Amino acid sequence: MNKKVIIYTLGKMIKVEGILMLLPALTGFLYQEKEAYVYMIIGFLLGLIGHFMSRKKPKKTKIFAKEGFVIVALCWILLSVLGALPFYFTGEIPSYIDAVFETVSGFTTTGSSILTDVEALSYASLFWRSFAHWIGGMGILVFVVAILPESQGTTLHILQAEMPGPIVGKLVSKIKVTARILYYIYAAMTVIEIILLLAGGMPLFDSIVNSFGTAGTGGFAIKNASIAYYNSAYVDGVITVFMILFGINFNMIYFVIIGKAMVAFKSEEVRWYLLIISTATIAITLNIMNLYPSIFTAFRYAIFQVASIITTTGYVTADYGQWPLFSQIIILFLMFIGACAGSTGGGIKVSRIMIYVKNALKELNRLVHPHSVVSIKFEGQHVSKQTINNMQTYLVLYLVVFCSSLLIISLQNIDFASAFSAVATCLNNVGPGFNLVGPVSNFSSLSYLSKIVLCFDMLAGRLEIFPILLVFSKNVWRK
Amino acid sequence: MNKKVIIYTLGKMIKVEGILMLLPALTGFLYQEKEAYVYMIIGFLLGLIGHFMSRKKPKKTKIFAKEGFVIVALCWILLSVLGALPFYFTGEIPSYIDAVFETVSGFTTTGSSILTDVEALSYASLFWRSFAHWIGGMGILVFVVAILPESQGTTLHILQAEMPGPIVGKLVSKIKVTARILYYIYAAMTVIEIILLLAGGMPLFDSIVNSFGTAGTGGFAIKNASIAYYNSAYVDGVITVFMILFGINFNMIYFVIIGKAMVAFKSEEVRWYLLIISTATIAITLNIMNLYPSIFTAFRYAIFQVASIITTTGYVTADYGQWPLFSQIIILFLMFIGACAGSTGGGIKVSRIMIYVKNALKELNRLVHPHSVVSIKFEGQHVSKQTINNMQTYLVLYLVVFCSSLLIISLQNIDFASAFSAVATCLNNVGPGFNLVGPVSNFSSLSYLSKIVLCFDMLAGRLEIFPILLVFSKNVWRK
Repeated sequence: MNKKVIIYTLGKMIKVEGILMLLPALTGFLYQEKEAYVYMIIGFLLGLIGHFMSRKKPKKTKIFAKEGFVIVALCWILLSVLGALPFYFTGEIPSYIDAVFETVSGFTTTGSSILTDVEALSYASLFWRSFAHWIGGMGILVFVVAILPESQGTTLHILQAEMPGPIVGKLVSKIKVTARILYYIYAAMTVIEIILLLAGGMPLFDSIVNSFGTAGTGGFAIKNASIAYYNSAYVDGVITVFMILFGINFNMIYFVIIGKAMVAFKSEEVRWYLLIISTATIAITLNIMNLYPSIFTAFRYAIFQVASIITTTGYVTADYGQWPLFSQIIILFLMFIGACAGSTGGGIKVSRIMIYVKNALKELNRLVHPHSVVSIKFEGQHVSKQTINNMQTYLVLYLVVFCSSLLIISLQNIDFASAFSAVATCLNNVGPGFNLVGPVSNFSSLSYLSKIVLCFDMLAGRLEIFPILLVFSKNVWRK
Repeated sequence: MNKKVIIYTLGKMIKVEGILMLLPALTGFLYQEKEAYVYMIIGFLLGLIGHFMSRKKPKKTKIFAKEGFVIVALCWILLSVLGALPFYFTGEIPSYIDAVFETVSGFTTTGSSILTDVEALSYASLFWRSFAHWIGGMGILVFVVAILPESQGTTLHILQAEMPGPIVGKLVSKIKVTARILYYIYAAMTVIEIILLLAGGMPLFDSIVNSFGTAGTGGFAIKNASIAYYNSAYVDGVITVFMILFGINFNMIYFVIIGKAMVAFKSEEVRWYLLIISTATIAITLNIMNLYPSIFTAFRYAIFQVASIITTTGYVTADYGQWPLFSQIIILFLMFIGACAGSTGGGIKVSRIMIYVKNALKELNRLVHPHSVVSIKFEGQHVSKQTINNMQTYLVLYLVVFCSSLLIISLQNIDFASAFSAVATCLNNVGPGFNLVGPVSNFSSLSYLSKIVLCFDMLAGRLEIFPILLVFSKNVWRK
């Protein structure tokens, strides 16, 4: 285990987090809030500590998959534990565990909140919460790789562990350049959304933070009624479109930008992703149309909630807890399916589901035709045995984490749907669940034990299980 | 596709079912019930049709895995559709779909009932319901193989498709002899349970049918209050012990009988099975002890319900729907885990869960130590790549069937826990679920659509997914 590289990289990350905290500090100063000082001081201290930790570049910078997983896991844990400090020291979230929950939920782009009155928060803290979504969406380490000079080619392991999806593709041969391109696209799309929201009459601050929440597929709202507060079909429309866009593999968006739009349109994953969204929207619209004055209203709420849940954003404009069971089950399934691989969305990912099903059907066929084709294709490429193996491992460990979490959560004697959906929504980085943790409720009523378990789940979900399990495994730390 | 062998085998099976119906007919005559005539007439007709279908033995009796799956699936569908006729024609279950549901539930050893007052049934029908458990537990085709003369060695494919578990072992080299030994053990254990129940003062009829329900891990009760009716710690104790025994791999019981008890005690699956039962019992006892007058009472109810659910029997002596969520979640998990492979129990099976977890941990370790061991051991044997592949396919298809069923069931606007547990309890062949389909309730309130889906699930669960999916697949039927 190359501990020096681990400490060095963590140091860099802490430094970056410290510097990023100056943005909420600045926001606070603009609104003349005393909370600004807290952000400034903590940001300064983190910058100092991080600078000290990463002062000396280690001689041996070569790392293996092992270090990649450990760095990513520790980085995300530290990021959250440190990122929670301002919430705690401004006194806005009096319990540190609650503050960590809120921060983990921010960085992992879950968007589950323990706040009963989010509107009471300072602008500085509202900014920090949503900015965490933006940073966490594309990945803090991708950010570190993108902005800092690095001569080594060893950052691939880190990116592989941080980027969601079963198969990680590089856009260009250099990792660093790939990381930059990704952030450029990400930033540009965010800016366009901000402008469109402004054009619809949304205040600047709201436009910025709501766009952060969309881009990272996070879902923290700055109003207690979430996006329903704006009560505007235009706002709903813009956010719906951008949620769907941010749920698409960024590689595909890159292809569109460089003029190879056909590659994107031929992508199996994108096609299925859009097909699932359309089917779910139509099914729910028909199922809920008699709850609303017109089929148009039903459609508007259906597509917003579908886009919000499948992309694992978690904004709400309608209380789907009041919908019939059929629509609720669709919403629940969308939580698990999640967005496309290589997007900022969470969940199991459309591509994984597709490969699971394709592979299972192929194997089922092989039971009766033992000499039939032995490998499956995805996006025109053969899927390797190793990829399938990793994915099967992911599925089993995902289920193990899910069941273990549900068991611990159930120590708190709440109803089944609340407990089940709390784990589902956190492990898939969605945000709202059902009943006690439903779209018009929040996570404040859960016990500290439940909150700690859900923090673990949010991190496990964001990092796709492996890093967060490996960091707690003896095997990784032994020589 | 060797259609002649399929028709021939189905004919044999129908003949056997017709003959077996003479037992409820006899029961009915003993109690001087008019329903006896219905069973006699239908039994006679089935015997005749079956005899006609299997009159001529086909020249080519060689079959492949494909025919094995098709025979097993068609056989179980026919068995249920025909077995439902007496319930319908006696008028005791006025709806034919309900009658089929009850019969599928019987043969698949699920034990979910649509009857609101089971005590109103004739003795003939009570006998037939429970006898279906007994036949379905070990398998109707195993029965056919065991009793009928057969010169071919081609029955292995049928047995493999009908016997539960990831790896099917033969006790002795001849399939036919293996099948007989299995039925001997099965019958002997059933008789011992009947005698022990009689010794506890239970009436003869009750002892017989309750033993059928235990042996097949079925769970149909002949009293509305299920086993709680007898309100006897002795009866609870005997049934608890026998449920646990019938949940053990019959190969292990065979080893004990032939004096190789150590082989059974060293079995990983048996050890884990007993460990899960003990842990779950202790956890639930502690969780529910303040609901009952003493810790002994809590223990008695805990162990009965744990044994009943993990073996997928489904008898109840306490309404676990009133227990705290933690105990309910344990019960829910036990439904999925199920009993040992090669027993009469359903569910995913302890051995599958163990292999999934072992394999996932091995693969997780391989992410960081790529040169580590590549295969896992189970019961001292290397598990082949093909077995792992089949199991992964099973898991994915299991989840697909589960989710599709839940989606269709949810068209009926019931609560989440009811819908979820209805599918869970039927797909795992348990019997009771939660809320609407809970231990003190039944399946009568579900729609016909839901009942049909659950019939499919019960069959899919009993035959472990593959046969029942393959029989509906084009690939199997094309030349």
